[in-house]
Amino acid sequence: MAANLSTSSNYLVAPDIEAVGLTRRVVGRDHEGREVEMRVVEERPLTIYLNRTEIVTAMTIGDHPELLGVGFLANQGMLRAGELERVDYHEELGVVVVRTAGETDYEAKLSKKVRTSGCAVGTVFGDMMEGLEGLTLPPARVKVTDLYALAKEINTTPSLYLEAGAIHGTVLCEGARPLVYMEDVGRHNAVDKVAGWMLREGATAGDKLLYTTGRLTSEMVIKCALMGIPALVSRSGFTAWGVEIARQVGLTLVGRMRGERFVCLSGEERLEWPE
Amino acid sequence: MAANLSTSSNYLVAPDIEAVGLTRRVVGRDHEGREVEMRVVEERPLTIYLNRTEIVTAMTIGDHPELLGVGFLANQGMLRAGELERVDYHEELGVVVVRTAGETDYEAKLSKKVRTSGCAVGTVFGDMMEGLEGLTLPPARVKVTDLYALAKEINTTPSLYLEAGAIHGTVLCEGARPLVYMEDVGRHNAVDKVAGWMLREGATAGDKLLYTTGRLTSEMVIKCALMGIPALVSRSGFTAWGVEIARQVGLTLVGRMRGERFVCLSGEERLEWPE
Repeated sequence: MAANLSTSSNYLVAPDIEAVGLTRRVVGRDHEGREVEMRVVEERPLTIYLNRTEIVTAMTIGDHPELLGVGFLANQGMLRAGELERVDYHEELGVVVVRTAGETDYEAKLSKKVRTSGCAVGTVFGDMMEGLEGLTLPPARVKVTDLYALAKEINTTPSLYLEAGAIHGTVLCEGARPLVYMEDVGRHNAVDKVAGWMLREGATAGDKLLYTTGRLTSEMVIKCALMGIPALVSRSGFTAWGVEIARQVGLTLVGRMRGERFVCLSGEERLEWPE
Repeated sequence: MAANLSTSSNYLVAPDIEAVGLTRRVVGRDHEGREVEMRVVEERPLTIYLNRTEIVTAMTIGDHPELLGVGFLANQGMLRAGELERVDYHEELGVVVVRTAGETDYEAKLSKKVRTSGCAVGTVFGDMMEGLEGLTLPPARVKVTDLYALAKEINTTPSLYLEAGAIHGTVLCEGARPLVYMEDVGRHNAVDKVAGWMLREGATAGDKLLYTTGRLTSEMVIKCALMGIPALVSRSGFTAWGVEIARQVGLTLVGRMRGERFVCLSGEERLEWPE
């Protein structure tokens, strides 16, 4: 288990705001020319390999590199749960290698793609969209009172966001309980780390909800849907394509959540209002 | 000239909030279950080619596709000003093709890279860092009163952000005057569109300042530095590596700008405070 024993809450994984290497103290000047010292988040490259194939270099705060590697590949449709054999993280190189027993479908497809067009970059997005075909999420109910309770607890949880800012958070929740709270300088990394945790722990998805601080773009909606989670909630706003994909796969999409106000643009029939 | 005649201000390019196809009206429910209609920004894939080579698929709001293609390639160090011959945008395909007279250095390097490692993705970031070697920005002075004037004008300019939210803005400024205001669902696209405009217009960079609504990450700092602009200002926060790179190249970096408050973490000796 990845339980973080330093937190007094119910979280299984929570932000570790004292972790060495996630923030740095920097000295500068404020608007009146006075010297100020502030805490800023780290940001470093992590190159993700699938076996011998270099896939991508992500800019990350640097915690949970193994979960980020596994979750990124899973969310790209490059890795399925049963295929994972081992993950090796080489801190000094900034490299994480996700290993499977045999060559994956993705690697086979990639070597063909490189032969035909000379570049693999464009395949990534197409693969994510392909994964959505025929996907319908389970019709889970979402209690509006749970949404308010979650937002309140998450927003007051000690986090790098509250300490240093300039970072996004994604929280895996069940009912009114936040379970796994990941943060990263890239909002997609935060959700990928949650995906990596779910894959490693064999967690169920149909009974969960994902809360994110970032905008509800197509990529966030696609990742949430591919993870099998039927509800996505954010304090930020929407894009039209994000809404369209959510409606297509039956995802409940709630945005602009501030205090006890929000807007729901997909799957509103699953919301349960208080009597 | 790309002057937007519909604006009453001094902008050469300003957000076109009435443009067809940049936003969509969507109907949903609010927190009390009432039907609401809201305006959300569009988001669509644009695949960028350099001659015959597919480079990347960007998720973009969709305006200025030619400038996005040119600016992305320029900021990645794949295209220099003199090389550009023609840009073809195929709206129905979602493809923009940037053409040069001959094969570029990047394409030569890429074809070698693909032969040796089978994947081109990892080269992109390395190429951006390479471009910074030996770079020192001109020691331009930045008036604090100009910063306040810029922030006030930009924040009150009619924009898709004010209309629909969930979008980032980047503004090219000179002294106290905002010149080119680009918005996009991806903050990197907004700065790439500014870079594309500068390359097309042959604009000077050493006398400019870049204002962005997004965080001051390494990628934003690198793009600003590669564009030759000596000051980068944001209402958002910093990452440690962004600060480190800014100090290395002599970029003035101002963040957390709200009203008449800010923090400067690099190049503070270039700020001119009012008497």
